[in-house]
Amino acid sequence: MNIDMIRAANDRLAPVVRRTPLLSSPFIDKIAGRRVFVKPECLQHTGSFKFRGGWAALSAMSPEQRERGVIAYSSGNHSQGVAYAAAQHGAPAVIVMPSDAPKLKIENTKALGAEVVLYDRANENREEIGQKLASERGLTLIRPYDEPQVIAGQGTVGLEIAAQAATEEVANADVLVCCGGGGLSSGIALALAADAPGLTVRPCEPLGFDDMARSLASGTKHRNANLGGSICDAILTPEPGELTFPILQKLCGPGLTVSDQDALKAVALAFQRLKIVLEPGGAVALAAALFQPDKIRGDAVIVVATGGNVDADIFKQALETL
Amino acid sequence: MNIDMIRAANDRLAPVVRRTPLLSSPFIDKIAGRRVFVKPECLQHTGSFKFRGGWAALSAMSPEQRERGVIAYSSGNHSQGVAYAAAQHGAPAVIVMPSDAPKLKIENTKALGAEVVLYDRANENREEIGQKLASERGLTLIRPYDEPQVIAGQGTVGLEIAAQAATEEVANADVLVCCGGGGLSSGIALALAADAPGLTVRPCEPLGFDDMARSLASGTKHRNANLGGSICDAILTPEPGELTFPILQKLCGPGLTVSDQDALKAVALAFQRLKIVLEPGGAVALAAALFQPDKIRGDAVIVVATGGNVDADIFKQALETL
Repeated sequence: MNIDMIRAANDRLAPVVRRTPLLSSPFIDKIAGRRVFVKPECLQHTGSFKFRGGWAALSAMSPEQRERGVIAYSSGNHSQGVAYAAAQHGAPAVIVMPSDAPKLKIENTKALGAEVVLYDRANENREEIGQKLASERGLTLIRPYDEPQVIAGQGTVGLEIAAQAATEEVANADVLVCCGGGGLSSGIALALAADAPGLTVRPCEPLGFDDMARSLASGTKHRNANLGGSICDAILTPEPGELTFPILQKLCGPGLTVSDQDALKAVALAFQRLKIVLEPGGAVALAAALFQPDKIRGDAVIVVATGGNVDADIFKQALETL
Repeated sequence: MNIDMIRAANDRLAPVVRRTPLLSSPFIDKIAGRRVFVKPECLQHTGSFKFRGGWAALSAMSPEQRERGVIAYSSGNHSQGVAYAAAQHGAPAVIVMPSDAPKLKIENTKALGAEVVLYDRANENREEIGQKLASERGLTLIRPYDEPQVIAGQGTVGLEIAAQAATEEVANADVLVCCGGGGLSSGIALALAADAPGLTVRPCEPLGFDDMARSLASGTKHRNANLGGSICDAILTPEPGELTFPILQKLCGPGLTVSDQDALKAVALAFQRLKIVLEPGGAVALAAALFQPDKIRGDAVIVVATGGNVDADIFKQALETL
């Protein structure tokens, strides 16, 4: 993993990626007590930054490898990013999803061009199903974060932040990033270390799922006690990644932890003041900026709002906090 | 009114304006039956394109004129754009609002740096109050659309569309624009006539408030029967503007008319598929693209989503249509 891989991924993404702007609002600044710049990756293709990693992985493959196809697990943002990037590359994509996943997510994944393989969460193991399919058809597995090309793709967010922060004349600041397995956080950290060394990544996690914060604090990997139970479904990973943790240990600042209620409030304020749609897991970094100002340094902060794939019911719940 | 004024406004806006991207979604394309490119001016400062006109007007004034201050009417998007642009120029701004305007709008306008003067809608005339204040204090009135510098500022949206459409290789297409008094539509039409003559503005209005569509069809100005009663409050103007109508007569295509229900559906689909927050009046152009495909030409269409200043209750109502 190095900065050259991120720059190469950036070149491959350049013709297709949405270079998301930095948004701000005087009302948000007032609550946070400093200038807040929000990078809305909810506006990225497929509604989250995961498109970048998916595209970076697909575009790095040989034509033969692409022709055989790719495979990814879960119904989440990574699968949508991979499905869409694969379709754009003319590569078959298989997404392995639990049969009790919301119908709309299954339909959406199909509509993005993927073949959906359903499994019974109670009686089947998705890794076994995936490995069987992969070896039968010669599919390449694209992991959500422990995958160098995926980290490189997510890191392109960091290259953009470095350039945009320079335009805003922000040289020293924290960069708050919603963090699951750490693919985005580690990619951004590598990019900033090269292009904007005064900017420091701070991983932000949901309360009870702060494996990264605890692991960074202690210097060894910790697991979360639970696998589910937060509204921030997009970033509930069991433990820091094998590739991502050492990068973050070296380059990032302490993690921040956010309650579900504060994540919902941040979703509502992003609606009201920034006019963007965030999912709770994509709003934890904004929540940290808004509601934990004492844990952040400097007179400006940069926030990565990572995704907006939220159901209407959860969004309505968030609006109730206004 | 000419293209040079728009280019000059663009130069003055360049350091501050958000150059909004073009968003798209395969799901939106599928409903519309063609490629749909959405320019989300809800992401502009103050949540609508009106910031552009406000800034263009303020930045064109002499220092002495700015020092005396500016005045605008109504609690809407224009007043917010003027208030914020004035504050950024260090110019006093007076916004005349009805005393029964929502408290939050009054507070927001104050928070953007303006002095709010309330009037009794039943017993007082806002023009009289405004003219008295203007002459007493030497304030300059900034009209919402019948004002050359305001049209020039809104026209910068057209310059951006011309460049962005070229990147997307869209040379011949309709450009659907939410239309009230016609300031934005006429500014865009002038810009496109100069920079992208294959692109044609189509003004989009709420059902019952289609004064521009009827006026364009007949060749003389028509008034709307009612002044209120649509959910699309941002674009309910009594009749086409004095300056804007002749420009649109010369340069734009037939108007399109959208029901409140279709506007709400478009708000919901913009939430679900584009991850942006639109107000109903800012979504009528998207609604026309989605639900009136037979009235539009070509294999691509460009939509200007003009604003996102919507209350949570209306937004929840829109989400019910999903």
